Amino acid sequence: MRIAGEKNVLVGGDIPDDYSHDEMAPVTSEPEVVFLAGDTSEISALLRHCCWRNIPVTPRGAGTGLMGGAVPVCGGVLLDLGRMDEILEIDEKNMLARVQPGVTLLELSEAVEARGLFYAPDPGEKSGSIGGNVNTNAGGMRAVKYGVTRDHVRGMEVVLPDGEILHLGGRVAKNSTGYQLLQVIIGSEGTLAVVTEITVRLLPRPPALASLLVPFSDLDAAILTVPRFAEAGITPQAIEFFRRGVIEASERYLGKSFPDRSAPAYLLLRFDGASREELEAQIDAAGRVCLENGAIDALIADTAERQEALWSARGAFLEAIKHDEMDEADVVVPRAEIAEMVNYADEVGECVGLRIESFGHAGDGNMHINMLRDGLPWDQWRRKVDRAMELLYEKAEELSGMVSGEHGIGHAKRAYLERHTDPREIALMRGVKELFDPRGILNPQKIL
Amino acid sequence: MRIAGEKNVLVGGDIPDDYSHDEMAPVTSEPEVVFLAGDTSEISALLRHCCWRNIPVTPRGAGTGLMGGAVPVCGGVLLDLGRMDEILEIDEKNMLARVQPGVTLLELSEAVEARGLFYAPDPGEKSGSIGGNVNTNAGGMRAVKYGVTRDHVRGMEVVLPDGEILHLGGRVAKNSTGYQLLQVIIGSEGTLAVVTEITVRLLPRPPALASLLVPFSDLDAAILTVPRFAEAGITPQAIEFFRRGVIEASERYLGKSFPDRSAPAYLLLRFDGASREELEAQIDAAGRVCLENGAIDALIADTAERQEALWSARGAFLEAIKHDEMDEADVVVPRAEIAEMVNYADEVGECVGLRIESFGHAGDGNMHINMLRDGLPWDQWRRKVDRAMELLYEKAEELSGMVSGEHGIGHAKRAYLERHTDPREIALMRGVKELFDPRGILNPQKIL
Repeated sequence: MRIAGEKNVLVGGDIPDDYSHDEMAPVTSEPEVVFLAGDTSEISALLRHCCWRNIPVTPRGAGTGLMGGAVPVCGGVLLDLGRMDEILEIDEKNMLARVQPGVTLLELSEAVEARGLFYAPDPGEKSGSIGGNVNTNAGGMRAVKYGVTRDHVRGMEVVLPDGEILHLGGRVAKNSTGYQLLQVIIGSEGTLAVVTEITVRLLPRPPALASLLVPFSDLDAAILTVPRFAEAGITPQAIEFFRRGVIEASERYLGKSFPDRSAPAYLLLRFDGASREELEAQIDAAGRVCLENGAIDALIADTAERQEALWSARGAFLEAIKHDEMDEADVVVPRAEIAEMVNYADEVGECVGLRIESFGHAGDGNMHINMLRDGLPWDQWRRKVDRAMELLYEKAEELSGMVSGEHGIGHAKRAYLERHTDPREIALMRGVKELFDPRGILNPQKIL
Repeated sequence: MRIAGEKNVLVGGDIPDDYSHDEMAPVTSEPEVVFLAGDTSEISALLRHCCWRNIPVTPRGAGTGLMGGAVPVCGGVLLDLGRMDEILEIDEKNMLARVQPGVTLLELSEAVEARGLFYAPDPGEKSGSIGGNVNTNAGGMRAVKYGVTRDHVRGMEVVLPDGEILHLGGRVAKNSTGYQLLQVIIGSEGTLAVVTEITVRLLPRPPALASLLVPFSDLDAAILTVPRFAEAGITPQAIEFFRRGVIEASERYLGKSFPDRSAPAYLLLRFDGASREELEAQIDAAGRVCLENGAIDALIADTAERQEALWSARGAFLEAIKHDEMDEADVVVPRAEIAEMVNYADEVGECVGLRIESFGHAGDGNMHINMLRDGLPWDQWRRKVDRAMELLYEKAEELSGMVSGEHGIGHAKRAYLERHTDPREIALMRGVKELFDPRGILNPQKIL
């Protein structure tokens, strides 16, 4: 209380239930104290205190994670970074933004786009915080062209578990100056240090955008088309795939009809271009590729409204099916293997007796395989989910894939990480954790 | 000898002098044994043996480094990876190449370009090995548009100092699966593990390229033009800057005349485009930006021959001035600060009494500040260089820059890294080294 002031520390019955869970993981646990941090020095003082007294501290951004990464599974202090939500600087000359971790993706995009700039990573959950994005190395739709969060982080201020403040990286575009601790902290899910400030690079805002909604008579044909774009020298921002089922769910959820639902499977592509002509040339070429590869049609959306209708529906898929209780595997496989992975997920659903809805990022091999409860008794559902997860991760490993493409490991996927990773690699990961956090107070029981 | 066979182990007088130095660092040291590795299992056996007997092992790629990173400063075994020079696979469906570390940049580019693909990183030294590039996180000219080596590495096979073989990352485009050890090894200059196989991503080869050589009446005007491109939404592959001095040196060195040397300062830009029209639109827009910002002219090179003349000269700058003995600072600063840094380097040269030639990557704030010996007595030259380095790194730090943009720390810049880095960050770096290499046998006395 002496650190943050009384109104920014919650205890006991004053703690809202929200702090005991995230958006999906089937894990809940209540913190003993919630600390609403106002600045870096408060966090430093808090960690110094907790490190000394061996009190677990779990950092939390917007709480939109899906793997339990921000759930205080060992109790202790929940460190809410939501009040640290300032955009500190937009440096147009160096094309950088310096922000606090609680800034949401939506706030960051709006602020930089107003200046003709563009923050390229584009996770579907726009109310997620940039701090959370850095901590999971979030990917998102535009990864096909622009890469993931890691590729856009230039520098960070972090607080180590003993309270010391470090500045890593900076404002530079290239860096070969010693071991890159910054790169280990990206994606470390709040287990190595608390990220208190982030410098990201910005790009010129592409002046022209257009999207292509492409119906196919089956998902295989849709997904087999994906490598053809690159072969034809076409680089969309995004290549998403989904089936009619999630369209219907999103229509029910949003109360809006989707522009097309005549076909069983779709690709949705978005393109940017330095000019209208360049964009049209890309759209034409992409449309040709689709039709040559069995697409039923290729519907162009080139007005802002039509594109908004498509992408807001895509952004709502997860929420739409989450209406029902569910769990998720976030596997990533080499791009060419995605059709096999999706078909296998269907087989697993049938074999285990679970309704499985898959959709995701066809362009970079990352898919979200969602397992719905559909009113099953809890224990029975969890048993089916565990069996399905194990089969899916085994298959992913066989296809040279990984357990998580962008959602992280958190608490929920620790056993799968351990099972599908070389024991020596796990031992080195443990060594990294011990190096940063020898007392193990920061976000315990996550990742490892 | 039992590991690699007699002809692949050199000892004593059979060891060529080349193994005792790299391309520039003022540090030489002879190995006791040179081991010409043939495959990963030999390296594993060698490291197991050396770890047990506490023998230093220094990995070396093509030996084109500039900071002494591949010089065996503690003697022991020099591990030459040059024989491991196979391109193991070009996976067109997933747009990946899997290569051994001894493959040169030139070999990799030629192999993938023959298939219509493109490896984006473009360091000037085309005879450098891809293993060396990964170990310094090399940048190169195209970093403005495509980023650095780190952004293109997907997976690696490495041998740990005790001989254990690990596979990190893989063939996937997104990855949030635990701490990314891969990212720590990139740029670690052979001090944490020996990289024995690398999977890099490829892009579609841009069908059209053109360059713009832009003379200016002074360097300030040239460099102040750089941020204007991004503001106008123009993204060149490369934005290089140089002065007449290095043009003249390269003409003497190559015996070929450069297309223009009428002006004291130049920008050299290269653009790619999905079509000839898109490319022309970019070139026009960039030419306009240059002329509006004080350029004397904007000379388009759109044939392969003309572009080759420009870029082969640019690629030879370092060799051309290195003819004379020299040392180099490889600082990187925020892009908008590069004019101030270059001017300051000139002042330092005058004040210390050294001839300094700067050129480099204006588009990403990374410049190579070269200090020429010009016949000075060795001791006097080294004293002047030390003084100049210290002043330059102090200035870089003041401008939020870093010690190395792309050449690494090696042996030569260790003291500067330590002086310009937070002691806690250095302590964590030491911890990383101890975690991977507790006996300290792998490339000792490098980075730290």
